[in-house]
Amino acid sequence: MIDLRSDTVTKLTDRMRQEMFRAEVGDDVYRDDPTIQKLEELAADMLGKEEALFVTSGTQGNQIAVLVHCSLGQEIILEEGSHIFIYEGGATSAFAGIQPFPIKGERGIMSAVDVEATIRGTDIHEAETGLICLENTHNRAGGTVMSPEKMKEIFEVAERHSIPIHLDGARLMNAAVVLKRPMTDFTQYVTTVQICLSKGLGAPVGSIIAGSTEFITKARKWRKRLGGGLRQAGVLAAPGIVALTEMIDRLKEDHEHAAWLASQIDSIPTLKVASQVETNIVMMDVSETELTSKQFVEKLKDHGVLANPFAPTIVRLVTHYDVSKADIHQTAAVLKNIVTSNVGS
Amino acid sequence: MIDLRSDTVTKLTDRMRQEMFRAEVGDDVYRDDPTIQKLEELAADMLGKEEALFVTSGTQGNQIAVLVHCSLGQEIILEEGSHIFIYEGGATSAFAGIQPFPIKGERGIMSAVDVEATIRGTDIHEAETGLICLENTHNRAGGTVMSPEKMKEIFEVAERHSIPIHLDGARLMNAAVVLKRPMTDFTQYVTTVQICLSKGLGAPVGSIIAGSTEFITKARKWRKRLGGGLRQAGVLAAPGIVALTEMIDRLKEDHEHAAWLASQIDSIPTLKVASQVETNIVMMDVSETELTSKQFVEKLKDHGVLANPFAPTIVRLVTHYDVSKADIHQTAAVLKNIVTSNVGS
Amino acid sequence: MIDLRSDTVTKLTDRMRQEMFRAEVGDDVYRDDPTIQKLEELAADMLGKEEALFVTSGTQGNQIAVLVHCSLGQEIILEEGSHIFIYEGGATSAFAGIQPFPIKGERGIMSAVDVEATIRGTDIHEAETGLICLENTHNRAGGTVMSPEKMKEIFEVAERHSIPIHLDGARLMNAAVVLKRPMTDFTQYVTTVQICLSKGLGAPVGSIIAGSTEFITKARKWRKRLGGGLRQAGVLAAPGIVALTEMIDRLKEDHEHAAWLASQIDSIPTLKVASQVETNIVMMDVSETELTSKQFVEKLKDHGVLANPFAPTIVRLVTHYDVSKADIHQTAAVLKNIVTSNVGS
Amino acid sequence: MIDLRSDTVTKLTDRMRQEMFRAEVGDDVYRDDPTIQKLEELAADMLGKEEALFVTSGTQGNQIAVLVHCSLGQEIILEEGSHIFIYEGGATSAFAGIQPFPIKGERGIMSAVDVEATIRGTDIHEAETGLICLENTHNRAGGTVMSPEKMKEIFEVAERHSIPIHLDGARLMNAAVVLKRPMTDFTQYVTTVQICLSKGLGAPVGSIIAGSTEFITKARKWRKRLGGGLRQAGVLAAPGIVALTEMIDRLKEDHEHAAWLASQIDSIPTLKVASQVETNIVMMDVSETELTSKQFVEKLKDHGVLANPFAPTIVRLVTHYDVSKADIHQTAAVLKNIVTSNVGS
Repeated sequence: MIDLRSDTVTKLTDRMRQEMFRAEVGDDVYRDDPTIQKLEELAADMLGKEEALFVTSGTQGNQIAVLVHCSLGQEIILEEGSHIFIYEGGATSAFAGIQPFPIKGERGIMSAVDVEATIRGTDIHEAETGLICLENTHNRAGGTVMSPEKMKEIFEVAERHSIPIHLDGARLMNAAVVLKRPMTDFTQYVTTVQICLSKGLGAPVGSIIAGSTEFITKARKWRKRLGGGLRQAGVLAAPGIVALTEMIDRLKEDHEHAAWLASQIDSIPTLKVASQVETNIVMMDVSETELTSKQFVEKLKDHGVLANPFAPTIVRLVTHYDVSKADIHQTAAVLKNIVTSNVGS
Repeated sequence: MIDLRSDTVTKLTDRMRQEMFRAEVGDDVYRDDPTIQKLEELAADMLGKEEALFVTSGTQGNQIAVLVHCSLGQEIILEEGSHIFIYEGGATSAFAGIQPFPIKGERGIMSAVDVEATIRGTDIHEAETGLICLENTHNRAGGTVMSPEKMKEIFEVAERHSIPIHLDGARLMNAAVVLKRPMTDFTQYVTTVQICLSKGLGAPVGSIIAGSTEFITKARKWRKRLGGGLRQAGVLAAPGIVALTEMIDRLKEDHEHAAWLASQIDSIPTLKVASQVETNIVMMDVSETELTSKQFVEKLKDHGVLANPFAPTIVRLVTHYDVSKADIHQTAAVLKNIVTSNVGS
Repeated sequence: MIDLRSDTVTKLTDRMRQEMFRAEVGDDVYRDDPTIQKLEELAADMLGKEEALFVTSGTQGNQIAVLVHCSLGQEIILEEGSHIFIYEGGATSAFAGIQPFPIKGERGIMSAVDVEATIRGTDIHEAETGLICLENTHNRAGGTVMSPEKMKEIFEVAERHSIPIHLDGARLMNAAVVLKRPMTDFTQYVTTVQICLSKGLGAPVGSIIAGSTEFITKARKWRKRLGGGLRQAGVLAAPGIVALTEMIDRLKEDHEHAAWLASQIDSIPTLKVASQVETNIVMMDVSETELTSKQFVEKLKDHGVLANPFAPTIVRLVTHYDVSKADIHQTAAVLKNIVTSNVGS
Repeated sequence: MIDLRSDTVTKLTDRMRQEMFRAEVGDDVYRDDPTIQKLEELAADMLGKEEALFVTSGTQGNQIAVLVHCSLGQEIILEEGSHIFIYEGGATSAFAGIQPFPIKGERGIMSAVDVEATIRGTDIHEAETGLICLENTHNRAGGTVMSPEKMKEIFEVAERHSIPIHLDGARLMNAAVVLKRPMTDFTQYVTTVQICLSKGLGAPVGSIIAGSTEFITKARKWRKRLGGGLRQAGVLAAPGIVALTEMIDRLKEDHEHAAWLASQIDSIPTLKVASQVETNIVMMDVSETELTSKQFVEKLKDHGVLANPFAPTIVRLVTHYDVSKADIHQTAAVLKNIVTSNVGS
């Protein structure tokens, strides 16, 4: 099977398995695991923050950020399609007691003007804004990239109102590779950031959150409450170190594969790319095929390709380490095949 | 001063004072207050529900509804300008741990199609929809009326998905008076409803929530936790009974006053009515005066009229029992005066 | 019926009805109600705090204190029989997300040593102590009085650890009257305090919380979220002012009645006073009568006396304004009657 | 260093490393990881429940149980020294909004009579009991074992009141080994159970929760919200399978080591065992040495032995896989040495 459902399906590389096998470990709740410490120092450095912390998922990292930054009864401003609002089970409200205030962005990117107009204050009717959340690249918008310059505009609004910014940078590495800029160009404009080791970078499990020492101290306690305080966590940190040191640059191949696939889709009469492809996510509009996305995905599966129905007529295809150039060519052939035979039916 | 800030500013009538003075009371936590019981039976009857419960405010009534209907981690669908989302301090998230999912309505009225498309289910990424909230009349949209027929469309969606509906009917009486239909025409399409005694109806304090006996039993416990379990509550119930029995029909005067004021506003060159007036709320657009709403409100105050700045260039004017026809005429004169002298400055 | 279930059953006095009738009112959400302001200033003064706020019940006042003082994930130290822990429906956990840490006091009075040993800190396994709660007089312990000197010992612990103290002083007035000391002698040792107007003082509805201006500002917002933001609240403030100015000194009569009743109970062979009577609460042990407290309460009711079964063999009798000396004599006679006839059966 | 701080410090065995290295993996959020599935089926079978779920820690497993079993505003009954109450950062209140009601057990074991007397119901003042939590073996009580017969007594109370029971069985395997009974003898009396793979069993990371299919379905969603939804989780499941299949029987060695160490401690004049040793935990009372537990632990460290100060004068010593018979003999020698030289000083 060619698995284009998500870059989360990547299996760890042989190098990751070897590092995991030989990982030096200790009890990380007692702060005794040297491999975790090495990973966290490396990540803090790459993200330009004082300290970093390993967490078991992007959701956990985002939730911890909300729990640390906000107080009960506050509000967070985020884009209406953002992962925190749509895909984390309403956890910010369930756990932190925070009300999300979603606003519509352009291709997932909120304008600084809209953000500023949405900030609320001490009036007794209002939930005070406690945090602004960004997502880069933006998954639901189709892997779109927010430039550091755009981030800076929101940063300036946030500074003016003394509101922290958290960046859901699950795929920040993709943005950095596309723009050929270091991650610190982006993270300089946010208070805290979360990046995923287990998506395009291929590690089996885990994410990193980074921020000030004070933030990480509080984050460590919330992580424990969430059940993310691990014991011999070094077995996960070892492949994580491989992910950060060896797997970022190669994301450009995933981007090339996605771009090529998009061009093929656009050449097929009844298919079109729903959102311009910037990174490794292709949103394919199947509405003209008169198939729903679920039906289309079924047909893909019959032809050996896995994908996700993303919206009633949108199929999402994600390229990653375990998808080769040949797989992409094969996928394009399958798409043509489906469309052609569908017309015939 | 002519106070057009809100219909909440109405002072209790002499009749209400007399009834309050002579109210028979008991300890309502022990269910011993006969006046409260009379009010609750009357309200249940008028709203066509099994039981009703006195609460100290509309916010408390709405919050109780969310606490009873929803489970931690669920989502409520509501209109993006609704009171529950905008003006209750994020309490649904803070207390019930519920994520609001706001959608845009037309003049505050959500379409059944949009509501159905927003319902979410058991997928592990999603907060399950636990409640749909309606608001009628809709405050932020300018006192707009949602017809029972429109409500029925959403009711049918809700039935299909087994999701309860709560109606924030703080000003449902205004809608009923405009359409000349009993409140039960509206409430038949909702699981629970909240109406305010202290807005247009003039009671000093309180709201009513109504629903099934099972709902009210649970509501009573949540009311106690919120601190709304009162002792000799009959002193508030007595004017509440006057509000429900004597003060509803006269709302049509408030509507006539608002309509007449709107017609005057539209006749003033640089002012316009921002949203067609249906009940007792007038949204006045002052953008062409080159004054902000806050500046305009200051000028109104200088001329003896109180109003609320509602948005950067929108002033809200609300008619009610304590505003006479003469007051409205005086207000129109003041508006002309301000605009004229402003042009001169 | 002689109603000894609670001092909450007191009906408002004629004077209260008159003041309520003529109360000057305004919309208190807009801070326009002069009577509420007068009550709040009076209460702040009597309690020796910068500001005070009217709330609709003792539970609401206590919950607001916890919401303002604590952060999500913290712990409060309180006595194991305290009202906040036992009788507020678990609201501190439900709303504020706070874990109560109950410790056993002597007659409801925690020792400073025990409190200090229970304080917890920043260790990642621990919920940090955010608040210490006292209750004076202590209801479940039988209306026991905590002296200012005892309070000072805990105050010193709290100061040392920079932890605020909230006093549930629903019946603080009783403690003050017994010790013949002003309420400020007690409140000087706490950060915030809640007192009830609707128990021994006879007002129909409401409590007061008092503390610093900063505390009250935050409290006002939480009160709104809880639904305690009232409109023409002056109708409740007016009798509240009578309660504070005219009804405190007479509590000594209730104490005399309770003491006399206790002496009678001790003279009846199979009854005994379960806990030394200090104020207006009598805990009567009926275990030797071989009746359960529920059965005993039923018999009392048959003889025209209402009381509460407090524990399986404990009946609680509370004296108050609506219970005269004659009522107490009658109650004593009824008790003898029940015990005698029960022996005969 | 001889590390007796906890059995959580055990490092994974060579066999675990090998299995981890060669683990077949998939994306467990998509339910594609065969190794996780194998572990979960194995665990469900060993625990006698319909289904099991891998979670990243015991805390996460316990929190999920509370989140699934309880509704906002309810109460859980647990022993006053239980891990859920003392060591999980107040998370049950912070996340689930649940009030813990701690009761004192004998050596950590609550009596069925006390549990039944603590159950609370629908009265509007009370937080309804939603769950009873047991802990077996009981950590703070010194690794004490609760027999299936004792568990049955509480089970019968719970059945009578239709309240579920959750067992924090982080060290249930130790109890099973001591009593030479299968884990199902214990788990038949609980609704759900959590066991730790990373304590005595030596796996690097993770716990299991088990219960009905309906429970696990809901648990999976709460696990996602807590950030415990992992991707290629098979790398943790592989050593977990080794833990469950090869590491349980050998716990009896840890128990023998603990018993022998306890006998040595009792033979040292100024030391004594604070709580009879039943499994792998030794609570050592150092009060007669006139050292605090922290000072004693420092001295132990100087002599190459790590332990935890558990209470002001109690030091906890835990035996496990990485502690050999020689290590225990060495520890006994160090204890004598410290006590002797301390007397001399």
